Amino acid sequence: MNNTQYSENNVSLQNQRLMKRLAEMGKVGALPGGGVNRQALTYENRQARELLIKWMEEIGLSVSIDGIGNITGLLPGPKESEPVMIGSHIDTVQSAGLYDGTLGVLAGLEVSQAIKESGIPLKRGLAVTAFTNEEGCRFVPDMMGSQVFAGKLSLEEALDATALDNPRVTVKEELEKIGFAGDTPCGQPKPCAYLELHVEQGPVLEAENKTIGVVEGVQGISWREYIIKGVSNHAGTTPMNMRHDAGYAASALCTFLRQMTREMGDHQVATVGMMELKPNLINVIPHEARLTIDCRNTDEKQLQEAENRLDSFVSQLETQEGVTISMRKLVRFEPVAFERKMVALVEETVQRLGVSCRRLYSGAGHDAQMMAAVCPTAMIFVPSVGGISHNIDEFTTPADIEAGLNVLLRTTLQLIAH
Amino acid sequence: MNNTQYSENNVSLQNQRLMKRLAEMGKVGALPGGGVNRQALTYENRQARELLIKWMEEIGLSVSIDGIGNITGLLPGPKESEPVMIGSHIDTVQSAGLYDGTLGVLAGLEVSQAIKESGIPLKRGLAVTAFTNEEGCRFVPDMMGSQVFAGKLSLEEALDATALDNPRVTVKEELEKIGFAGDTPCGQPKPCAYLELHVEQGPVLEAENKTIGVVEGVQGISWREYIIKGVSNHAGTTPMNMRHDAGYAASALCTFLRQMTREMGDHQVATVGMMELKPNLINVIPHEARLTIDCRNTDEKQLQEAENRLDSFVSQLETQEGVTISMRKLVRFEPVAFERKMVALVEETVQRLGVSCRRLYSGAGHDAQMMAAVCPTAMIFVPSVGGISHNIDEFTTPADIEAGLNVLLRTTLQLIAH
Repeated sequence: MNNTQYSENNVSLQNQRLMKRLAEMGKVGALPGGGVNRQALTYENRQARELLIKWMEEIGLSVSIDGIGNITGLLPGPKESEPVMIGSHIDTVQSAGLYDGTLGVLAGLEVSQAIKESGIPLKRGLAVTAFTNEEGCRFVPDMMGSQVFAGKLSLEEALDATALDNPRVTVKEELEKIGFAGDTPCGQPKPCAYLELHVEQGPVLEAENKTIGVVEGVQGISWREYIIKGVSNHAGTTPMNMRHDAGYAASALCTFLRQMTREMGDHQVATVGMMELKPNLINVIPHEARLTIDCRNTDEKQLQEAENRLDSFVSQLETQEGVTISMRKLVRFEPVAFERKMVALVEETVQRLGVSCRRLYSGAGHDAQMMAAVCPTAMIFVPSVGGISHNIDEFTTPADIEAGLNVLLRTTLQLIAH
Repeated sequence: MNNTQYSENNVSLQNQRLMKRLAEMGKVGALPGGGVNRQALTYENRQARELLIKWMEEIGLSVSIDGIGNITGLLPGPKESEPVMIGSHIDTVQSAGLYDGTLGVLAGLEVSQAIKESGIPLKRGLAVTAFTNEEGCRFVPDMMGSQVFAGKLSLEEALDATALDNPRVTVKEELEKIGFAGDTPCGQPKPCAYLELHVEQGPVLEAENKTIGVVEGVQGISWREYIIKGVSNHAGTTPMNMRHDAGYAASALCTFLRQMTREMGDHQVATVGMMELKPNLINVIPHEARLTIDCRNTDEKQLQEAENRLDSFVSQLETQEGVTISMRKLVRFEPVAFERKMVALVEETVQRLGVSCRRLYSGAGHDAQMMAAVCPTAMIFVPSVGGISHNIDEFTTPADIEAGLNVLLRTTLQLIAH
């Protein structure tokens, strides 16, 4: 611990430098009304990558790019030592704010620059990584770069993925087009630990007036699409008991989920985000409804229970309404619990800084959940004003960012010291 | 009654002739996969109008066209006598069957031809009318021609209505373009009674194995559009109790309606035909939902009660979910009860023919409900196979059509005889 204390005191962070870089990166793919659009492997994403590399080189990190386009800037440590990795992503959704993903990468940059400038001797190297296509809004699956890095998805499969808006375009082609099909083997450099600073993307920290979220793990996610087939008929002449109303069945599914989450408790959330009726006319009973269900839980058994309850209700609904319901699994990730020691390390660091915090689970998916299969992993959350994210109004105050940056630095220093 | 008996025996209907005309009219605006598209005042609607006039002239009816384009073929009676009118419409929805509306007009044609050919002396004239734009799918309001005829909508207002798919196109322009802006004053010829034969467009007659529906009246209709505003947020990170989910509120409204109709009994029906969510993404809590509610009842007080219950639930939902809900009234017709004597006349006629029947209310709107304000009115329903309507699969058997045609003739003869 002596070592750590000494290091901390000699490393000076410049939060202003981080804020400036966030603003500058926010000009890349800027939208007219605010916010950015830098979807994975687009021209704007390429510009962001080039800016990031420019900064890495200015700081003196040695840059490598792997086969799926993950960018790593390495502050080398003694040979044979595995570096600590700080990572996240710089691709965004279509109308994103400036913080999601980008904060984690640029905070890593600031931490590495501060450490480099301090001249303290390193027991381990420090890698700053921007993973390819975390958002998954142009190519599925999401967290693509970290999945390939962690060996959870083969490079070939990832390269063959086609664009959601144009099935003739592949990840491989787009990577080559923007000049980011690198030659470093995926999974290199292998880290000894992984840290990710991220905006919460939810309202909990703000609501409880806490500055730091110590992330215990990532919720499991179950995404399903349901198609309900009923019978179209005249809204005026068809008695209620003779209907096979696909729209009603869809709504009943939605209200069932509310009831289910109430019964299952706080760890279970469920959302119907999409719903579409056919023919979608005011005076016609819908013959078809398409809806998606997003269920998440921090516990795999509980998530399975939610899926089972949903299955039972669907069967019951089919019988009761005389409709047929088909289901397609879109995404299924088991919950990830971060290593207890790592979570405790972050928590102790925050407490030592005298900053308010609470433990929580991440409701969103993050590269960290893939990296947890590679090495001890932790995440640090800072508050999202209004809980808003994936939205041009996404905002985190500079003071909260500074607190997060401090926690990231001090946690990193402790990991580097061993 | 002597008179009537004598008339009936001397008039011979040719159902084959009606079926042939139905088939021929079904070629006008025919769709590749079956069914027709002859929306009001389109080129196809013009072709249908010209074919109808050709047939009227062949039979020897004198054709007039009024200011809103209603077409009447008159078999004249003694001067000063008001004619009996048989009417319906030949415009259709976008993907319609061959029977809705057209059956009523062509059955009127067959009745007038049979009466003319019989040479029986007429105490009154017989008018066959095709009203303009009953469906209302290109121009609102629906039942436009009969509303203007009945003085419930001014001619000027109707002519100024703009196309739903192109606000630069008016009824006036389209009427002139197809050559059907007539010069007969609207409301002429004033009938002494009005009859309309129509397909049920619902499943009740088929389900109860009845051939004829004796229509007691038309349900009142309340069409409303609701826009629910909530807050978009991340589906994973937003606790259930911190959501303002516009999509959930929309579904809750839909399932509430089911509960309400169950409590209010068979005369109350309610349908959510349209529902649209924004942003309609799998992992985003919807911030906006738009839905329509179609409520119908045979009793005005009951319909008002349904609207009141709905209003209360909406207020409750606003508070409970922290959403705001705005409502726009789209259509509101009070229920119409046909004159008891007319309903009894139809029922007795059916019973005299030894055909099975039941009394019922129309769940759909019809020109007859407007004509009920002008003169004693009745409607005769024949079964819709599978209850299907507004659909290319709409079908009524030739035998059922013949039964309906017979009832129409015999009721007409009794009205003409007085």
